[in-house]
Amino acid sequence: MAGNSFGTLFKLTTFGESHGTAIGGIIDGCPAGVNLDLEKVQEELDKRRPGQSAIVTQRKEPDTVEFLSGIFEGKTTGTPIGFVIQNSNQKSKDYSHIKDTYRPSHADYTYDEKYGVRDYRGGGRSSARETASRVVGGAIAKQIIPEISFSTYTASVGEIEISVDHKELDFNLIESNPVRCPDPASAEKMETLIREIRSQGDTIGGTVQCVIKNVPKGLGEPVFNKLHAELGKAMLSINAVKGFEFGSGFEGTKLKGSQHNDQFNTDGSTTTNLSGGIQGGISNGMDIYFRVAFKPVATLMQKQQTINSKGEEVSMQGKGRHDPCVVPRAVPIVEAMAALVLADFFLQNKISKI
Amino acid sequence: MAGNSFGTLFKLTTFGESHGTAIGGIIDGCPAGVNLDLEKVQEELDKRRPGQSAIVTQRKEPDTVEFLSGIFEGKTTGTPIGFVIQNSNQKSKDYSHIKDTYRPSHADYTYDEKYGVRDYRGGGRSSARETASRVVGGAIAKQIIPEISFSTYTASVGEIEISVDHKELDFNLIESNPVRCPDPASAEKMETLIREIRSQGDTIGGTVQCVIKNVPKGLGEPVFNKLHAELGKAMLSINAVKGFEFGSGFEGTKLKGSQHNDQFNTDGSTTTNLSGGIQGGISNGMDIYFRVAFKPVATLMQKQQTINSKGEEVSMQGKGRHDPCVVPRAVPIVEAMAALVLADFFLQNKISKI
Amino acid sequence: MAGNSFGTLFKLTTFGESHGTAIGGIIDGCPAGVNLDLEKVQEELDKRRPGQSAIVTQRKEPDTVEFLSGIFEGKTTGTPIGFVIQNSNQKSKDYSHIKDTYRPSHADYTYDEKYGVRDYRGGGRSSARETASRVVGGAIAKQIIPEISFSTYTASVGEIEISVDHKELDFNLIESNPVRCPDPASAEKMETLIREIRSQGDTIGGTVQCVIKNVPKGLGEPVFNKLHAELGKAMLSINAVKGFEFGSGFEGTKLKGSQHNDQFNTDGSTTTNLSGGIQGGISNGMDIYFRVAFKPVATLMQKQQTINSKGEEVSMQGKGRHDPCVVPRAVPIVEAMAALVLADFFLQNKISKI
Amino acid sequence: MAGNSFGTLFKLTTFGESHGTAIGGIIDGCPAGVNLDLEKVQEELDKRRPGQSAIVTQRKEPDTVEFLSGIFEGKTTGTPIGFVIQNSNQKSKDYSHIKDTYRPSHADYTYDEKYGVRDYRGGGRSSARETASRVVGGAIAKQIIPEISFSTYTASVGEIEISVDHKELDFNLIESNPVRCPDPASAEKMETLIREIRSQGDTIGGTVQCVIKNVPKGLGEPVFNKLHAELGKAMLSINAVKGFEFGSGFEGTKLKGSQHNDQFNTDGSTTTNLSGGIQGGISNGMDIYFRVAFKPVATLMQKQQTINSKGEEVSMQGKGRHDPCVVPRAVPIVEAMAALVLADFFLQNKISKI
Repeated sequence: MAGNSFGTLFKLTTFGESHGTAIGGIIDGCPAGVNLDLEKVQEELDKRRPGQSAIVTQRKEPDTVEFLSGIFEGKTTGTPIGFVIQNSNQKSKDYSHIKDTYRPSHADYTYDEKYGVRDYRGGGRSSARETASRVVGGAIAKQIIPEISFSTYTASVGEIEISVDHKELDFNLIESNPVRCPDPASAEKMETLIREIRSQGDTIGGTVQCVIKNVPKGLGEPVFNKLHAELGKAMLSINAVKGFEFGSGFEGTKLKGSQHNDQFNTDGSTTTNLSGGIQGGISNGMDIYFRVAFKPVATLMQKQQTINSKGEEVSMQGKGRHDPCVVPRAVPIVEAMAALVLADFFLQNKISKI
Repeated sequence: MAGNSFGTLFKLTTFGESHGTAIGGIIDGCPAGVNLDLEKVQEELDKRRPGQSAIVTQRKEPDTVEFLSGIFEGKTTGTPIGFVIQNSNQKSKDYSHIKDTYRPSHADYTYDEKYGVRDYRGGGRSSARETASRVVGGAIAKQIIPEISFSTYTASVGEIEISVDHKELDFNLIESNPVRCPDPASAEKMETLIREIRSQGDTIGGTVQCVIKNVPKGLGEPVFNKLHAELGKAMLSINAVKGFEFGSGFEGTKLKGSQHNDQFNTDGSTTTNLSGGIQGGISNGMDIYFRVAFKPVATLMQKQQTINSKGEEVSMQGKGRHDPCVVPRAVPIVEAMAALVLADFFLQNKISKI
Repeated sequence: MAGNSFGTLFKLTTFGESHGTAIGGIIDGCPAGVNLDLEKVQEELDKRRPGQSAIVTQRKEPDTVEFLSGIFEGKTTGTPIGFVIQNSNQKSKDYSHIKDTYRPSHADYTYDEKYGVRDYRGGGRSSARETASRVVGGAIAKQIIPEISFSTYTASVGEIEISVDHKELDFNLIESNPVRCPDPASAEKMETLIREIRSQGDTIGGTVQCVIKNVPKGLGEPVFNKLHAELGKAMLSINAVKGFEFGSGFEGTKLKGSQHNDQFNTDGSTTTNLSGGIQGGISNGMDIYFRVAFKPVATLMQKQQTINSKGEEVSMQGKGRHDPCVVPRAVPIVEAMAALVLADFFLQNKISKI
Repeated sequence: MAGNSFGTLFKLTTFGESHGTAIGGIIDGCPAGVNLDLEKVQEELDKRRPGQSAIVTQRKEPDTVEFLSGIFEGKTTGTPIGFVIQNSNQKSKDYSHIKDTYRPSHADYTYDEKYGVRDYRGGGRSSARETASRVVGGAIAKQIIPEISFSTYTASVGEIEISVDHKELDFNLIESNPVRCPDPASAEKMETLIREIRSQGDTIGGTVQCVIKNVPKGLGEPVFNKLHAELGKAMLSINAVKGFEFGSGFEGTKLKGSQHNDQFNTDGSTTTNLSGGIQGGISNGMDIYFRVAFKPVATLMQKQQTINSKGEEVSMQGKGRHDPCVVPRAVPIVEAMAALVLADFFLQNKISKI
């Protein structure tokens, strides 16, 4: 209950600090008999990996996942899947300068207040390094629900936003640029902005959009575990996320009901999809789409004033190699969390009726 | 696990359909020794009650809560608190006209797809009537954490939005108008708009903002159960909600890190509060504030085309008395869910360190 | 988490004190589409009811269950089933004499130590009255798994024990005598003993045996949620239970492996069944059988020395009408708990493989 | 929910098969600030280790635990504690002879029925090797509740039973003999019996008793999560366990209430302790004691008839080095599970009242 598990039937529990020996996790509740393609899992991890392009952090971490249990002769056995990712980059000395310093808008201060102790090396448990374990979990989740497709991409960086509707995008272009934006014109502007921001030692926020197709009807468990409520929690649990909206989202609040209602076709599909594929917390078979807001990374390559654990004013400057914009590397994390939610509800729905 | 419980230690489980005998719930995990003011619970319910003002549904439901257990001589005993609210308004005949009809953008179709059966009377379990039980739970949750204050209000209706920062609002004015908007100028415009929309037989969306003060430092359980992730799930589980943002929210994605970081004062407070009182998923003692997007109500007093359960096109028109804008009555529900989250994390935090 | 819920997917949460307004509960996770026979539920309750025969407590409680939700047109809808049983017998005055007194081997002292407050009327929440809600839950659980049959009976009272193997008993005789013992010779001796004990103002213990037939293979979730581990927990959670054993039980510890191993027939059944129908925590299709130990009821119709809440010595004597032996009325409770466990694992097993 | 987690607030999740790469687990919910003595953890593991004495299996497995997270500068940080134990002994070839064979009274058949696939190497997940992870979890649990003392020992082997009451035993003698029996006379007889049984290629059952002292009053969460119900589940989840009883246990069913009731002293302690330290599911401060029944090990060094996965009769004979009696090595496992239960309830009780 201490917050390191996600999911009800398909359940991921993770462990590990940024600069500890290793990170990893246990997936419990994966059905037996799934033919797992472990290379696909590593491919997803590689999308999240530092150093993959010029516009992300240049740290070198191979992030190789090793599976320890639950898979036998290529198949899941129904027993828990344990896995680890070694921390190859663990050098405590790099972080001595922030041992007693609370970095602004990081979790340093709140961890100390909550736990009375904290692993200050690279943010410890609060580091986004933890999300690598989520990507492993999500990549396995996807293989339980192969018919469902996930397309996730950068929808905005700072003020630069894709202006076309997601239905007009070619998702095959997502991986064609380092920003992971399927609109080439926007992608170029986003990349230029990120390079510019980096040259200032600054950072910038952005949004990630996820579109999920071929979702079976009936997923979601009202009233508290509505499909979009779990998706929202999943996304908000990712580092640096400040908001979540699905379907018509915040813009939808400005509409009238006569504009917003999705009219039915006779096959149960709808002519419009402002509902975002979910009605009453349950999928209706239309595309699910949602948007996730990421704040700018708090670690700056600029001098900042802050305080230390004694309440004294100190000045600090980010060292090492950090992301000027977290959004491109957040894309596989958003997708992994979405897959965890869908796979879990897919299993839960198997017992909704007799 | 079928989705009708909320909370980890302070846990609300609810039951009941719109037109069944009664709705109600069980609160398990309420500590013993809390002096409960049950009148306050009823007061919160009255804020959610239909018929309370000219701009909400004119249905008459007294919504009186009756407590069945867990309270003895005015105090909680540590045992589960069972409660019921009778459905005084249960007339099945009113709903025969929609028995086989799927109302657009309602949950009729998805419930049928998921369960193969549905209580069609007034939306059954998918009706917002269910939220009355949440208000009871939230009102009790508040009495566990009396030092924490909640101020919740209508921040926008359609395009009309409060333009001033929440720090400049006088929350004492929230209940001074039927819209529950503490900015009198905006309130008047909102009320006018709602009346106009109602006269068209239409509905309109809006947003609710909640500001939480005096939050102890340390609440929230990373990594998956971050304080804002649970708040987000709580809000997204409310009927008609399409989005959630806290602190700088979606606007924050446009900022640079150097603009967005909250600088520390020497006492650990921050000069700005774009973080929204939460860093790394844990409260830092600053005000928590968030915004919730409500779509326009799907039931219109207009003729609509739709389909029935045989896939035939039919036309329908909303009968009875419905809300032209759900936002004013959603205010106490948002607040109740926030209180449930805070009380739960308050208890969880009692064992974060030894 | 405060202990008033039982089950993972098919989940019963109960509330209510002995002398409060009502007891009741919520069943969440019941699949939709089950045709419920509510009379059967009441029949099970009647087996637990006080006053049903000369050898049980003569209190008069009709114990009529009222369902409030989750059932529509005779079928479950997949939504939570709320129910209440009114406490017709609630007279606080009867219990004023024990307000400050800790009855020996009751829960009075421990509730006060744990909660700092207690509803002293009739034992409050610690009263076995709470088990009526379990019987309701169990009776519904049975209707999800109609192919599985449960036979539960009194196996011993004091030193008087059924000497024949359960395979030689005619379970149709269970309800032929007030002791609920299918061995008529033993039943008579047990009844005589109970009458004698009652005439002394004393009480006596005993054991209940449950035999479950037609269990599908594959139920149980190792490693921690083994089928017999959940059965054990279920039984030990019943008031007055001191022990649980299944299959060969404690006697099996005296055997050699060569005597204890169950040899396979070629169809996967076994020639003997010392395993008790469960191997490695998973049902193997053979009969499940287990035995539950009940201590003698602690309330005596004799004078006893004890202490009050100030630590002063006081003398007390049981008033009212109590059971001289809890075992006959415990039979339906044991069966209900067994049904809850089996129905839950039945649902869980639907997703063990793909 | 798939059964590989134990505990509510202090929660152990384990993974790993007998002959996979490694076994291990994650402890979530351990409070921050606990000074962990990791050598003590290894000491407990060494008590469970194969090859430790002449009367247990002579397999050689060092069973060294490696901690991967959650501990920093000797203290717990409140984040999850990940750990692994490498499987040094993993030779698949040893098990090819049982690949398609269902060993009698093992879990081979039921795992195949449930999952449709199974890791046949050494029993896979159903092997008692998994309990090493429990011992790690229990050893850490103990350090959260250092004031509570656990004394666990072999109470019987086959028909040989300690005849004296546990209050008269010197628990310092438990580790003085390989049987782990604090009664030297019985220990000698037990050891002789085990040697004799082993020479026959056979196995024998036995019982383990656990006595827990200095338990704070108030632990346990009625009604379903009574302290003894969780202890029972914990014990029954251990491989080869067939029964559990606490306090007066099955013998207590033969007593009258006037014999069984524990009379109070004025300080709240009781003159007798047939309740076993628990009343109404809550600890009363007296010693908790319980007994666990272990069946004889199913792997025999004798020829046995059985079937294979095609339903054909085959004969088989145990190879390798197995325990003739599991009880001496089960002692630390029983103690670990007891510690997990007590630590969890210790934390849960911190929020039972305000």
